[in-house]
Amino acid sequence: MTGEPRIGDVFGEMLRDAYAVHTGIGPRPLVGGRLPRPVIEIIERDDGLINGAPAAHYLDGPQDWQPYDHRAVDRARGATLDIGVGGGRIALLLQERGVPVTGLDTSVGALRVCRHRGVRDLVLGTVDEHAADGRRYDTFLLLGNNLGLIEGRHRAAAFLAALAAMAAPGAQVIAHGTDPYGTKDPVHTGYHELNRRRGRLGGQLRLRLRYRELGTEWFDYLVCTAEELAGLVRDTAWRLTDVDDRDAPYYLATLRLAG
Amino acid sequence: MTGEPRIGDVFGEMLRDAYAVHTGIGPRPLVGGRLPRPVIEIIERDDGLINGAPAAHYLDGPQDWQPYDHRAVDRARGATLDIGVGGGRIALLLQERGVPVTGLDTSVGALRVCRHRGVRDLVLGTVDEHAADGRRYDTFLLLGNNLGLIEGRHRAAAFLAALAAMAAPGAQVIAHGTDPYGTKDPVHTGYHELNRRRGRLGGQLRLRLRYRELGTEWFDYLVCTAEELAGLVRDTAWRLTDVDDRDAPYYLATLRLAG
Repeated sequence: MTGEPRIGDVFGEMLRDAYAVHTGIGPRPLVGGRLPRPVIEIIERDDGLINGAPAAHYLDGPQDWQPYDHRAVDRARGATLDIGVGGGRIALLLQERGVPVTGLDTSVGALRVCRHRGVRDLVLGTVDEHAADGRRYDTFLLLGNNLGLIEGRHRAAAFLAALAAMAAPGAQVIAHGTDPYGTKDPVHTGYHELNRRRGRLGGQLRLRLRYRELGTEWFDYLVCTAEELAGLVRDTAWRLTDVDDRDAPYYLATLRLAG
Repeated sequence: MTGEPRIGDVFGEMLRDAYAVHTGIGPRPLVGGRLPRPVIEIIERDDGLINGAPAAHYLDGPQDWQPYDHRAVDRARGATLDIGVGGGRIALLLQERGVPVTGLDTSVGALRVCRHRGVRDLVLGTVDEHAADGRRYDTFLLLGNNLGLIEGRHRAAAFLAALAAMAAPGAQVIAHGTDPYGTKDPVHTGYHELNRRRGRLGGQLRLRLRYRELGTEWFDYLVCTAEELAGLVRDTAWRLTDVDDRDAPYYLATLRLAG
């Protein structure tokens, strides 16, 4: 056998199990049918790198967040679209503050967890699919490193066009990114070099997620500097108006509708 | 690219990082060069199943062990070979108690961690390689589920013969196993069925370990019942004299030299 996973809702299955562990309700993963097994998100990169990380942080309350998450949430105003709503941690705080928030995700399982936790307005789909729904937003949130969803040079323009199509006048994007180039680890610097040789941005990761017997298809996820982002935003409807890098290498980029 | 790992000392690299986290000394894995990244062991099965688990337990002190580990250690007497010594947790307690213990492992990195933690007698190699060294033992320990090292029908006989070649008169094997058949999870019951159809024992797992850019070759690891073990021990130099299943589905099997 090849060891290849079956394609499925990796993120949703993982989040369902993490939520069962978090609440103590429902079947929880066990080792040998007896000892609890922590829920681990596994991310493979196409050069063979693999990393696991506990999934519990998707359900963390604000007291466990990083400082940039708090600053990002404080910037949300008006009708807000939380893109990649995940376990709903950001949307729940916005709701509590009375900010009208919609959670968007491509994972049915993630939306089920959000619903159960009390997120009221949820949409299944990509930004392109949701753009066809005719709704308008004042704030678009790309948190949890989800600036990565712009994928790379080609996809960035279409992604930002979909947001522009849903944008109310004066709308903003608040995106969490990471500068990938601070490392000296040859596993990473070698990958950045390889990427450039194949005509990609250095931090344009080709990834898939795995959880138990399931995997996603391989997809691009962009880790880029604020300077690279500025280049990608040029010639779109958006302008990069602010970069908050107080927690470097992590940063919050603010885009505003041009003109 | 294929996403295939490079073959290397997966366990040793993982343990080195887990030990750095444990002690707070030396370079520790980080996310984005800044936030600590927990060390996760990743195990792939050849049907595409993948699981991650925190590696910290390899360094746990006795206060964090499962009860069967304590009962196993209490049975060690005389010159003891800890097979798959790993991070040395078992060997360290035996040393403290004055039991003469030798740690055997195929991972150079694991032996380095053991050495640093104070395990005095360490051997690099397989049981077959060590059998050629002419040393004799009264107790062989296969803890941390390492009964699995007997792999399956074919390898079990050769593995037990290697132990017999190193056995002092009256020697014993204390092995920790798990009954794999209590589960109703189709991911596992289907795999057991598939295994039987290809002429293997139900719980004869085909696995590889991965850590960062490294992977092992695919190898067999046997999870079997005490009854299946009894069948594998028949026609060897050993007799299955005791099964302690107080923590079922986990059990401790004791083998003694026949005759």
